[in-house]
Amino acid sequence: MKILGVLGGMGPAATLDFLAKLQAATPAARDQDHLRVLMDLNPQVPDRNVEGGAAGPVLAEMAVRLREAGAEVLAMPCNTAHLHAEEIRAASGLPLLDLIDLAIAAAGNARRIGVLGTRLALDLYRTRLTAAGREPILPTEEAQSAFMDILYRIKSGDTGPTARALMAACAGGLEQRGAEAIIAGCTEVPLVLSADDLAVPLIDGSAELARACVAACR
Amino acid sequence: MKILGVLGGMGPAATLDFLAKLQAATPAARDQDHLRVLMDLNPQVPDRNVEGGAAGPVLAEMAVRLREAGAEVLAMPCNTAHLHAEEIRAASGLPLLDLIDLAIAAAGNARRIGVLGTRLALDLYRTRLTAAGREPILPTEEAQSAFMDILYRIKSGDTGPTARALMAACAGGLEQRGAEAIIAGCTEVPLVLSADDLAVPLIDGSAELARACVAACR
Repeated sequence: MKILGVLGGMGPAATLDFLAKLQAATPAARDQDHLRVLMDLNPQVPDRNVEGGAAGPVLAEMAVRLREAGAEVLAMPCNTAHLHAEEIRAASGLPLLDLIDLAIAAAGNARRIGVLGTRLALDLYRTRLTAAGREPILPTEEAQSAFMDILYRIKSGDTGPTARALMAACAGGLEQRGAEAIIAGCTEVPLVLSADDLAVPLIDGSAELARACVAACR
Repeated sequence: MKILGVLGGMGPAATLDFLAKLQAATPAARDQDHLRVLMDLNPQVPDRNVEGGAAGPVLAEMAVRLREAGAEVLAMPCNTAHLHAEEIRAASGLPLLDLIDLAIAAAGNARRIGVLGTRLALDLYRTRLTAAGREPILPTEEAQSAFMDILYRIKSGDTGPTARALMAACAGGLEQRGAEAIIAGCTEVPLVLSADDLAVPLIDGSAELARACVAACR
């Protein structure tokens, strides 16, 4: 088994959600069957959504330290931080499983694909979905502002009914505009949105990344 | 803020439960308010409950690596592994917050204190409770066998109603024998037992450790 390195803390609760999905995705009858995980849960990574946030060098250094500690494969349960994926790969020399690519692959044959995420993450999805011949359905400017409000609400610890209702409304807007599947393109989304809230399939990037980690490390 | 190092994986689900309690215990309005956590979730630590399991040297080496990666304070959400606490402290030179001592301190003025845990953890609790002038109320031989069956059931991923009922019965046996408080002296216990299951206070060692980590690192 390979040792998984996790670049975490973006945000802290989303990282735990990913780790729980990793354990759930692992066929295990006892402790020893689970993956060894070296994690740097670093909530002090500069905010990825603020102009001039210098997250790249911090993430690259975290990745190098994880490799030095023994990590052989990297995962980062934060979509927005994938802006710095190449910098992380170059600095560490390790494979970084790509959350964005995994989420898009999980959308299967759907043509019109909705995405919920930060503006920077939506840029990544728009580019890659278009390159893959899919039509990205992204929130309107108004819905995007609402999404960011919900995101910071979740990060403050509020995953209650109001946050859930607001997120479901954001997702509903994408459905109404013809999305045939919706990608939770932000690892905070699954904390307040479940498949039951939607009429179309919800693609949980954290769960896809978890399954890919198990496949890569076992 | 100091960087917390976590010696985890014993078991994997119990470690996540501890991390969730750590986040819940942290006053935080945004990601950046949370503690940075370096974690080695190592499910391949030799089984602490099997004769001749050589967990000590493995844990000591994990602690050294966490220090080298930047950890300044250590926590280990596994009671049984505290048999090796001094070896870990000596090897790493770092403070290791003591789960056993924290759980006993949380029992307050209760005189007769019940403990649920592995045989080796119960030995630690018996010694320290007696030294502190308390009376340990430990499971009967039969109840202890049942406890170990439940423990391995939890470690296999089963935290369902049967595991819950069996653990509640173990705890009930200690209440009947006069325990004025019950320590969850195994980090798997809170996964299937809550305060509502008991008439006397339940002391959750994982939650106590989480609060102590916040106090030590912020």
